[in-house]
Amino acid sequence: MTFPVVGMVGGGQLARMTHEAGIPLGIKFKLLSDTPQDSAAQVVSDVVIGDYRDLDTLRSFARGCDVITFDHEHVPTEHLKALEADGIPVRPGPDALVHAQDKGVMRARLDALGVPCPRHRLVSDPADVEAFANEGAGFPVILKTVRGGYDGKGVWVVRSSKEAAEPFRAGVPVLAEEKVPFTRELAANVVRSPHGQAVAYPVVESIQVDGVCDTVIAPAPGLSADLAAHAQEMALRIAAELGVVGHLAVELFEVPGPDGTPQVLVNELAMRPHNSGHWTQDGAITSQFANHVRAVLDLPLGDPRPRAPWTVMANVLGGDFPDMYSAYLHCLARDPQLKIHMYGKDVKPGRKVGHVNTYGDDLADVRERAAHAAGYLRGTITE
Amino acid sequence: MTFPVVGMVGGGQLARMTHEAGIPLGIKFKLLSDTPQDSAAQVVSDVVIGDYRDLDTLRSFARGCDVITFDHEHVPTEHLKALEADGIPVRPGPDALVHAQDKGVMRARLDALGVPCPRHRLVSDPADVEAFANEGAGFPVILKTVRGGYDGKGVWVVRSSKEAAEPFRAGVPVLAEEKVPFTRELAANVVRSPHGQAVAYPVVESIQVDGVCDTVIAPAPGLSADLAAHAQEMALRIAAELGVVGHLAVELFEVPGPDGTPQVLVNELAMRPHNSGHWTQDGAITSQFANHVRAVLDLPLGDPRPRAPWTVMANVLGGDFPDMYSAYLHCLARDPQLKIHMYGKDVKPGRKVGHVNTYGDDLADVRERAAHAAGYLRGTITE
Repeated sequence: MTFPVVGMVGGGQLARMTHEAGIPLGIKFKLLSDTPQDSAAQVVSDVVIGDYRDLDTLRSFARGCDVITFDHEHVPTEHLKALEADGIPVRPGPDALVHAQDKGVMRARLDALGVPCPRHRLVSDPADVEAFANEGAGFPVILKTVRGGYDGKGVWVVRSSKEAAEPFRAGVPVLAEEKVPFTRELAANVVRSPHGQAVAYPVVESIQVDGVCDTVIAPAPGLSADLAAHAQEMALRIAAELGVVGHLAVELFEVPGPDGTPQVLVNELAMRPHNSGHWTQDGAITSQFANHVRAVLDLPLGDPRPRAPWTVMANVLGGDFPDMYSAYLHCLARDPQLKIHMYGKDVKPGRKVGHVNTYGDDLADVRERAAHAAGYLRGTITE
Repeated sequence: MTFPVVGMVGGGQLARMTHEAGIPLGIKFKLLSDTPQDSAAQVVSDVVIGDYRDLDTLRSFARGCDVITFDHEHVPTEHLKALEADGIPVRPGPDALVHAQDKGVMRARLDALGVPCPRHRLVSDPADVEAFANEGAGFPVILKTVRGGYDGKGVWVVRSSKEAAEPFRAGVPVLAEEKVPFTRELAANVVRSPHGQAVAYPVVESIQVDGVCDTVIAPAPGLSADLAAHAQEMALRIAAELGVVGHLAVELFEVPGPDGTPQVLVNELAMRPHNSGHWTQDGAITSQFANHVRAVLDLPLGDPRPRAPWTVMANVLGGDFPDMYSAYLHCLARDPQLKIHMYGKDVKPGRKVGHVNTYGDDLADVRERAAHAAGYLRGTITE
């Protein structure tokens, strides 16, 4: 059968789970991975080991692929344009992806679209930071390298311009943003296909600990139907205006509006399957991974609706013990309904090595089960 | 991490879907496949191409595996005993598996356990068949080679001893069985682990067309709670008595009892993930494939309960058109809730190349959606 080949750049857990989702769809999956030990490389048949920063490697990898997509946003924009010029569909395309690669480009575009964002400005030195704070944002100020940050890396919170020297040392552009007094973080996740079909997942609450996603609750508890619909519409509009193909995660801050009614501001964009969508594997009719594959191939998209009243995802981070296997046995025995997703990665303290999903009718119970399993696997809960 | 390695013998769709289910569990999967084009070999990283009938090949494959399990029942019993003697756990073990390999052994054991079966007798020639019919079974008589049959192959329905010559031509043992006037076929599927934990899936109705499974309905409509519990208990008892490890499918005939109350007779046993359990991928909390992996590794088993009131599985058979891709696009577009499972196999008329699962509250709707998709993919429905 003439089923197509998806080439995915990057061998992390997102590629691992995309391959898993592609198996029942019958699509063929080809992986470009840094090493044979990478999370996805362990489970994919057709793996090329190579450096995604090398154009010749990318070109060689792309031969025989019907479309190229990504596990991460780090492929240089000019390489993606070169692949497109070669006639290889790149999805999301470089003109869309740049908004997830470069926070300065992203902010400028969202401003132009009238999408509410935190106050922000590109800054060149600590004096710029001081000026930004004095013109309304106030301290503390968040400083972010415009490219390459993730999970709290490349991000600084400075309480004065005296603390602001370090971000400028690397000589890369820095974006200053106000520290928004948010009540919580949300994510509006949508998937869009090349011919413009799009689906919106329920808006979720995302709870971060030390700058890393800890727990996701689907749907976001207590979110008004109006604000949920507004956030979904905003995410769909961003996807359409930016020409996104595939999964788009719009990370949001929920803040009190002028009259006390909650509003949302856009924090970050990610154009790939995203940690805030892992709950969909067990909690939605169609997972974000399956819909990402369907979108980049321009297949009809699957139903994004939830299968249970509540689904909770908790990330499993590495703890002090390199071997999680006995904790894993305990968790499977304690909760026969637990859905566990291990990434095959070596355990290092604080590293994401898996996640668990739980679902059910009672949010307190669903949260407790997810938190217990994640804590037990990490070693922070021992009973 | 010291997560274990499951070695699976056989590269068909059952191995493909077992690998898929093993990815989130974090287990490593190694495959022994006849060719690199086999369904599972297309999607598994660690594949050995070789002949499962060759003991040296099996021994070499088993090195580095923590357990060996199977996609089919065709590995010679003596080879399995040799692997066990080498210290490799083989699950299900040869002493259990022989009951799924040899219908004569299976019938004798079920008789000894008092499990109700169709009338049956090992026969050596057409005169034996005549005698079997005359002593109560009557014609037509079902003749089956005791080893090697599947999906209607190795099975004959004869209306007289004159028609009974062919099954004996190969010189292999033949089992005669009465043609049971069943009202429908059911399946009781259970999973058992080495230390004796076991779970029972809801009893399903299995609808065959031309000797091949066409549709499975979970749970079996109109089945009394008493008969469902009886069938589950019988399957659990067979699994325990035979020492089965992994998934056991007990195929059943539902027949009217002496007082008109439905009863069940055992038709066949299969000791591996089974077509009557494919619905569990999208319809149960834990799929048969995930629980098979968990069982052969002696991990705690997952919850087998259904996630929806009704789940229907329909097999996708090959039709006259070798390329299903445009039909596949149509089916995904028509039903965004459809769960499709393609096996990556070349289309040949009548060959199982995939299946679809549908689920929901309304059985008529769920059946229509599954039947439409399977029929459209095969080409028997064109609108």
